[in-house]
Amino acid sequence: MKPSIPQGTRDFNAETLLKRNYIFQTIKNVFELYGFQPLETPAMENLETLLGKYGDEGDKLIYRVLESGNPFGVDFFKSLSEYLKSRYEFYETLKDQNPNLDNPFKNSLWNISPEYLTIASKELIQNASLSKLKSGVSEKALRYDLTIPFARYVAMNYGQLSFPFKRYQIQPVWRADRPQKGRYREFYQCDADIVGSNSLLNEVEFANIYIDVFKKLNIDIELKINNRKILTALAETVHKHDAVTDITIAIDKLDKIGLEKVKLELADKNLSENNIAVIEKYLLIDGDNQTKINKIKELLGNNETGKKGSEELEYILNFTSDIRHQTSNITIDFTLARGLNYYTGTIFEVKAKNVQIGSIGGGGRYDDLTGLFDVPNVPGVGISFGVDRIYDVMQDLKLFPSNMNISTQVLFFNLGEEECKVAYNLMQQLRNNNISCEIYHEKAKFDKQFKYAERKNIIYTAIIGNNEIESKTCIIKNIKTGVQNTIHQTEILEYSFL
Amino acid sequence: MKPSIPQGTRDFNAETLLKRNYIFQTIKNVFELYGFQPLETPAMENLETLLGKYGDEGDKLIYRVLESGNPFGVDFFKSLSEYLKSRYEFYETLKDQNPNLDNPFKNSLWNISPEYLTIASKELIQNASLSKLKSGVSEKALRYDLTIPFARYVAMNYGQLSFPFKRYQIQPVWRADRPQKGRYREFYQCDADIVGSNSLLNEVEFANIYIDVFKKLNIDIELKINNRKILTALAETVHKHDAVTDITIAIDKLDKIGLEKVKLELADKNLSENNIAVIEKYLLIDGDNQTKINKIKELLGNNETGKKGSEELEYILNFTSDIRHQTSNITIDFTLARGLNYYTGTIFEVKAKNVQIGSIGGGGRYDDLTGLFDVPNVPGVGISFGVDRIYDVMQDLKLFPSNMNISTQVLFFNLGEEECKVAYNLMQQLRNNNISCEIYHEKAKFDKQFKYAERKNIIYTAIIGNNEIESKTCIIKNIKTGVQNTIHQTEILEYSFL
Repeated sequence: MKPSIPQGTRDFNAETLLKRNYIFQTIKNVFELYGFQPLETPAMENLETLLGKYGDEGDKLIYRVLESGNPFGVDFFKSLSEYLKSRYEFYETLKDQNPNLDNPFKNSLWNISPEYLTIASKELIQNASLSKLKSGVSEKALRYDLTIPFARYVAMNYGQLSFPFKRYQIQPVWRADRPQKGRYREFYQCDADIVGSNSLLNEVEFANIYIDVFKKLNIDIELKINNRKILTALAETVHKHDAVTDITIAIDKLDKIGLEKVKLELADKNLSENNIAVIEKYLLIDGDNQTKINKIKELLGNNETGKKGSEELEYILNFTSDIRHQTSNITIDFTLARGLNYYTGTIFEVKAKNVQIGSIGGGGRYDDLTGLFDVPNVPGVGISFGVDRIYDVMQDLKLFPSNMNISTQVLFFNLGEEECKVAYNLMQQLRNNNISCEIYHEKAKFDKQFKYAERKNIIYTAIIGNNEIESKTCIIKNIKTGVQNTIHQTEILEYSFL
Repeated sequence: MKPSIPQGTRDFNAETLLKRNYIFQTIKNVFELYGFQPLETPAMENLETLLGKYGDEGDKLIYRVLESGNPFGVDFFKSLSEYLKSRYEFYETLKDQNPNLDNPFKNSLWNISPEYLTIASKELIQNASLSKLKSGVSEKALRYDLTIPFARYVAMNYGQLSFPFKRYQIQPVWRADRPQKGRYREFYQCDADIVGSNSLLNEVEFANIYIDVFKKLNIDIELKINNRKILTALAETVHKHDAVTDITIAIDKLDKIGLEKVKLELADKNLSENNIAVIEKYLLIDGDNQTKINKIKELLGNNETGKKGSEELEYILNFTSDIRHQTSNITIDFTLARGLNYYTGTIFEVKAKNVQIGSIGGGGRYDDLTGLFDVPNVPGVGISFGVDRIYDVMQDLKLFPSNMNISTQVLFFNLGEEECKVAYNLMQQLRNNNISCEIYHEKAKFDKQFKYAERKNIIYTAIIGNNEIESKTCIIKNIKTGVQNTIHQTEILEYSFL
C-alpha cells in the first residue's frame, strides 16, 4: 500500500508551520490588542445547522460525516426494503379505486422508474420514523466556514454573553471543492467579529486592525472600502426586481471580464440602456476619496439609502484620517461588491501591492447574524484574513524574518556512556534555562554527529570527551563560523548561544 | 430551530482556551527544548490508511466522511438496483443445473433474507466496478489518533527525513465512542515520538520530558515504568499460544477487578495453577526499584527476553538517577501493561498524585512504526499527554496561575465624537506598545460603560471628557481598587497598567 493523503489536503512540516504560526500569531496578537477573545467550536456541526446556509452550491460542498461504522449494513437494507414495501403497498391500496393504476413501486426494485427512485431517496432521508435507517445516515457535517458556527454559538449562548461581543476564531474548515492551485479542501480561516452593535466605530476598529496586522507582517496593502447601501441605491434607480443581485453579480466580475462584458451581461438581464449608462458612470467614478464621495452623491441624488451609504463611508474615512493625523490608508472602490453574501453596510477588501494574487482579506457589516437560529436583532461586522494567500505573498516577496529558526540550539555529542552522562547533566541545565538541546542518540563518529547537526540546522555543538571530563571542560563549536571555544563546565549557563 | 452541537463535542470559550493553551504551550515548550519539531497532518485521511489499524472495535469508531452531497441520491438507488438484479440473475443461471434452487435474491427486495442482505451490502462496498455507487460512498475518514497519520507521514516522506526523526503533534482526533463524563468524540491528542533509533537514551529523554512538563505545570506525579519484554518473558514461562495476550488483558484489569478476579480470568484461559501462581508472584513484587529488579531477575531466571527487559529498565533508572544526582522519580510497576497496543519494550504511564483520575500520560517503545505502509525497520518510542484530564486535575487542585488573564487591559470611555477621537488616538499609542485596549462602541452613560468593563473583567478605565480635552489630560481608574489618577495625555505610555 502506497501511503498518500486525500486530494486537496496537506501535511505541514516544521519549517512551514513556523512560518504559518508567525502569521497566525501576528494576527492573534493584534486581535487581542483590540480586545477580541478567542473562541473554538467543534469540527463537526449538526447537519441541520449547516444545510441551507450557503445556497445549493454550498450545500453540495459540505462534507457529511457518517454516524459510525458501515452505513450500508444490513439495517440499512432492511429499512430500505421495508420502506419500498410500504410504498408498494400504499399504491396497491389505490388500485381498489383505480384498477388500471400502474404501481410505480413495482414488486421488484429494479423495475422502479428513476423518477420514483429519486422521490423514494428524498423521502427516505426525510422520514424520521425510519430510525434504523437514519442511524446509519449522516446527521453531522464538517464546518464549511467559521461564521455559521459562530452564529450558532451566539444563538446558543445568547443569555450568557455580554454585548457587544467580540470574538476571533482561527480554525480549519472543509469544503468538497475541486482542488486546484491555491484551493484546498482543508484550509484555515481566521475571522474576527463584533456583534450586537451598529456603531461605525467597529468599522474603524477593523480598518485599523487590517492596517496594523499588515504593517507588522511587512506587507504593503491596498485597503478598499465600499458600502452595500450604495449598491442598493444604485439598484433602486433601476426599478427592477432582483436588480441588486444582477448588478452585484455583474460588478463582481468586472476585474475578470472588463467593463464591456459587464455591460453586455446587464443588457442580458434586461436593464435598459439608460440604466446601464448610470451603472457605467458609477463604475467609472475615479479620483481621490473626497472626489469619489462628491461624485457618488451627485450620481445617487436624493436616494435615502445612497445618502446613508456615502455618509457611512465618509464617517469611517474621516475618523481614520483624524486619528492618524494623515491621509487615510483606505481607498474607496465603488466596484467592490464582495459577491452574494449577507453584507448590508460597509464592505472591506485587502489586496497586496507588488504581487499578483487575489484578495488577502475581506469582510463587512451584516444586519442579522442569528436570525436563522431564531435569535433576532444581532447585527455585526466582521473581517477575515486569507492565511494561505498571505503565506504565498510573504514567500514571494521574501518577507519572513530571516532569523526565524525552530531548530535545536545545541547538539551535545555522544562519545560513550560516561561522557554522555556528563553531557546530559550540562544539557539539562541549559534546557532549564530555555536553551533547546539534544544529545546524539548513540555513540558515533564525530563525522556522523556533525552531519546530524548540519541536516537539522543546529548551529552549536558541545563536545565532551575523556580529556574534557578530566579537566571539567566542554568544547563548544559554532559549525557555521567554525569558531571553537573551550569553557569550564560550570560556565555553560553563561555561554551565549545566539 | 434550537441550535445545538453534536453530542460529545464542545465549544471552548476564551477562559477555557486560556487554560488549555497554557497546558499546550507548556508541553510544546518542553518538546522544543528537547529538540522536537512540530508536524500537522490533515483531519481527513484516506479510509484505507486508517482501516484495520485499530482492531475491529476501533474500525467501528472511525468517523467516515462522505465524498460530498447526498449519498442516497438516485445514482445510489440505481446502482443498488442494478447490483441486486445481477445477483438475482446469477442465481437464476444456476437453476439450469439445480431447478429446485431457492434464489436468495428473490425478484423483490423485501423477500431477500437478512443473511443475503448482509452479503450484498459487503459486496456492494467492495465491488470496485460500481463506480457510481462508490462515488457516493465514503473514501475518507477523520483521524482516530495521531500515531497512524504520523506513520503514514514517515512512510510517505521516508527519503526526505533525517533520522532519528523527532516530531511532536498536537491536534484533535475524532472517535464515534459513546460520550460520557470525561470522554469526548472530539478531543486533542498531544504526542511526541523519536523514530529510527533503538537507543535507550530516547527513553531517558521521554522520562525527563514527563518530569519537566509536570514540574512546570505544578502537578505531583507518579511516573511508572515497565517493559513489555518482561511481560513476554512471563508469558514464555506459560508455554501457551496467546499467553501474552491473555496475561496482558488480565493484568490490565488488575486496578479495576483486583487480584482474585484476575486469577479467575487466567484460569478461564486455561492457565495451570502453577502458572497462575507464577503470575501472582509477579504481580505481588514490591519494594523499591532495586528490590523489584532483583526479584524479577530471580522470578524470570535465565529467560533471555526477561533479562533484556530488566536490563533495559535498570539502564533507564540508573541513567536518570545519575544525571539528577538523586533517586530517580521513576517507579517500576510490573502490573503496568498498557493494553493491547503495539509496544515491544519500555512502557510508561503517568498518574497524578492527590486526585482520583485515570492516567494523564502514557507511551512506550515499538519495533515497527511503518511496516503497515511497506517501510520496514523504523523502530521508535513515543509518549502522549492526556490534556483533558490534565485540565481537570489542574482545575480540581487549583493549579492554574492566578494571574492568567486574557481580558483587555484598558477600556476607554466613549463620551461623544470629539472625546472619542482623542481617546482613540491615545488608545492606538497603547496598542502599539502592546497594551490591549478597547473603546466603548457608542456614546453612553458612565454607568453602562463601567458595567461593560466589569463584565469583561477589564481593570483599567480611561476617561476623557470635555475638561480633559481642554487640559490635555486623561483620568485613569482602576475599577478593582477604586484608585483614580489624572495624567497628562503625553504621559499615557509611561503609565503602568499592571
